Amino acid sequence: MESKTVIVLGADGYLGWPTSLHLSAAGHEVIAVDSLVRRRWDRQGGTSSLLPIRSMPERIRRWSAVSGRAITWRRLDMLNADGVRALLEEFRPDAVVHFAEQRSAPFSMIDRDHAVMTQHNNVVGTLNLLFALQQSAPDAHLIKLGTMGEYGTPDIPIEEGFITIQHEGRSDRLPFPKLPGSMYHLSKVHDSHNIHFACRTWGLRSTDLNQGVVYGCTTDEIGDDALLATRFDYDSIWGTVLNRFCTQAAVGLPLTVYGRGGQTRGFLDIRDTVACIRVSLDNLPDAGEYRVFNQFTEQFAVLELAERVQTARAAHGLATEIDHVSNPRVEREEHFYQAKHQGLIDLGLQPHYLADTLIDSVTGMVERHRFRINPDLLGLPDVDWRFGRRHPGHTDTAEARAGQVSG
Amino acid sequence: MESKTVIVLGADGYLGWPTSLHLSAAGHEVIAVDSLVRRRWDRQGGTSSLLPIRSMPERIRRWSAVSGRAITWRRLDMLNADGVRALLEEFRPDAVVHFAEQRSAPFSMIDRDHAVMTQHNNVVGTLNLLFALQQSAPDAHLIKLGTMGEYGTPDIPIEEGFITIQHEGRSDRLPFPKLPGSMYHLSKVHDSHNIHFACRTWGLRSTDLNQGVVYGCTTDEIGDDALLATRFDYDSIWGTVLNRFCTQAAVGLPLTVYGRGGQTRGFLDIRDTVACIRVSLDNLPDAGEYRVFNQFTEQFAVLELAERVQTARAAHGLATEIDHVSNPRVEREEHFYQAKHQGLIDLGLQPHYLADTLIDSVTGMVERHRFRINPDLLGLPDVDWRFGRRHPGHTDTAEARAGQVSG
Repeated sequence: MESKTVIVLGADGYLGWPTSLHLSAAGHEVIAVDSLVRRRWDRQGGTSSLLPIRSMPERIRRWSAVSGRAITWRRLDMLNADGVRALLEEFRPDAVVHFAEQRSAPFSMIDRDHAVMTQHNNVVGTLNLLFALQQSAPDAHLIKLGTMGEYGTPDIPIEEGFITIQHEGRSDRLPFPKLPGSMYHLSKVHDSHNIHFACRTWGLRSTDLNQGVVYGCTTDEIGDDALLATRFDYDSIWGTVLNRFCTQAAVGLPLTVYGRGGQTRGFLDIRDTVACIRVSLDNLPDAGEYRVFNQFTEQFAVLELAERVQTARAAHGLATEIDHVSNPRVEREEHFYQAKHQGLIDLGLQPHYLADTLIDSVTGMVERHRFRINPDLLGLPDVDWRFGRRHPGHTDTAEARAGQVSG
Repeated sequence: MESKTVIVLGADGYLGWPTSLHLSAAGHEVIAVDSLVRRRWDRQGGTSSLLPIRSMPERIRRWSAVSGRAITWRRLDMLNADGVRALLEEFRPDAVVHFAEQRSAPFSMIDRDHAVMTQHNNVVGTLNLLFALQQSAPDAHLIKLGTMGEYGTPDIPIEEGFITIQHEGRSDRLPFPKLPGSMYHLSKVHDSHNIHFACRTWGLRSTDLNQGVVYGCTTDEIGDDALLATRFDYDSIWGTVLNRFCTQAAVGLPLTVYGRGGQTRGFLDIRDTVACIRVSLDNLPDAGEYRVFNQFTEQFAVLELAERVQTARAAHGLATEIDHVSNPRVEREEHFYQAKHQGLIDLGLQPHYLADTLIDSVTGMVERHRFRINPDLLGLPDVDWRFGRRHPGHTDTAEARAGQVSG
């Protein structure tokens, strides 16, 4: 493959950092960009990565030492419109990979301020990027991270972005209807509409990747090099479900399933995330094309995942309990779910399906770092979809009404 | 009908003001709220209402004098979240009618700043309202103004908000797919998703009115009382198409049709706008229900409308030219269009269909005020969907590329 100039936005994050390394290893010229806001949210909220992570300059120096490849580092907030445009002017990228968004559903549901901040940050940051692309890099390929959560759980199979609808003797291929389940998921739906418009109207080219829930703690490029580690979240705000289950199992706590656990979602290994970005980059959409892929490899119900962890632990003679806790989210707990995910396979993705060895390796990593766990962060979730962040002794009009709202 | 306490947000606008009067005349307790930002945008942009409009306190005093009914006035910006919540706490409304958004597509396409301001203003203002409703008035009926432009021009008939989709042997009733045509229209799509979520998740009740293009300059309550007049815009930023055509005809200029003029849209008389709000108010949705109506009475192609104006003028022996000008928008100029609009009829709306007498009355009003027209505002549109506001001698990367983008 030819070497491309690729800007990775959100390069300090769980997935942005491994993606930067993976694209660098593939021979691309990578410019890693981040505002570092996630590290500030950790300090403010008392959360932290279980794996210690180095500063961006340190990690980039280490990568250069072990790989011989350079990555350029820039600190920039996407809300700085002039800065975003200057970035594109400076590097004239072939592609921009956009991870730079607030990506936690519970964080977005804490209260009004967090909901508004999430939608403002994500939507305006992406608008700034779209205008900068139109002005300064109109042929660049925008690879944007969306989420499978944009679709919700409709009673029909979920297509990849578009669906052909037959209606009253006519037919059209239209955007797949969206039923997002949080203020965060809504922000991604807004982004999708804005990007689609920019492609239709300005002729930009984009790949929108509706990603499932990611699990795992390392990639081929990171390996077990502690100086290259990417963050690993285990708390109820930032931790994804399988990573949280592995953490609970490693420290001997029950796995906490929200409600009945029939909630079914698409999942993928972090090694497949970085591969999906690479194959998207290798296959350029046409000018004006808005291409959507569903980026996951397998679907599981949450209870099924808990049982997978239980089984993997049992193979080592370890007993793991599963607790069903009151569901803090408003969502269906038993439902039809069948989502297509063929597009990236067709482009060459070779999935890593979930195996006990992955669960073993994550729980093993957690065990080695268990001294860093804050037990307060392993408690019950403290953000409820109906009335925000709970505080001890909290009562509220909305809470009093919650019984009237159906899940 | 019982008297309700109704907050009208955006009450200083073209439609918000007549709606306030209409609901007051129907016996409701009306609280009229506006930030007055639209008057500031006029001062900044050099636009103005053809009909002189009085200050809100003056108009409300006049209404009280002629009707014997009081309207309460509050100046408030929807971006002031605490103020929005305090407003609901003070009045404990039965319903909130929400017109308080930036509502011009060309204004939103001027440049990045206007696009971002439009989406921020509209989306965050509505989020503030949703959180305030959840906290302080969870049973109130939110009546929100959307736009038919959320749907775009799909090749299938447009349903009212939701469509039942048959797919691979299964079926679901899902939000109708959206193809909005400007940064402004996108903001309304974002609002619709946010409101639908608030209904599903918090049990709020809402009517979302996807309104067509409004024409006309007065209602039964305003009549020809100059002290009660609502604004009338005739420029290419704020003026709606039929009002612009009537203005051009009144001053003897050609009617300027964008492109071929086959663009078909839903239209309604301003008298029907206020009636639609009233019948929505009289029919409460259930708790948790997100109800969508398409609020228009007839559909026309733009060229057809121009010809209606030409015919109405010809009846008085007046010749009117029609000019096809280069289309500043990226849109289909010939397309299928069939949009349902039965819901409001079923609730009792009795439409005023477009008649030559309406065209005569609008052109007559313009003739009486022609000394107030700024001829500069009757020129060709200066905002293009591909490269924003044109300036004399302007060149731009995006402009140079425009030929590559299909309409």
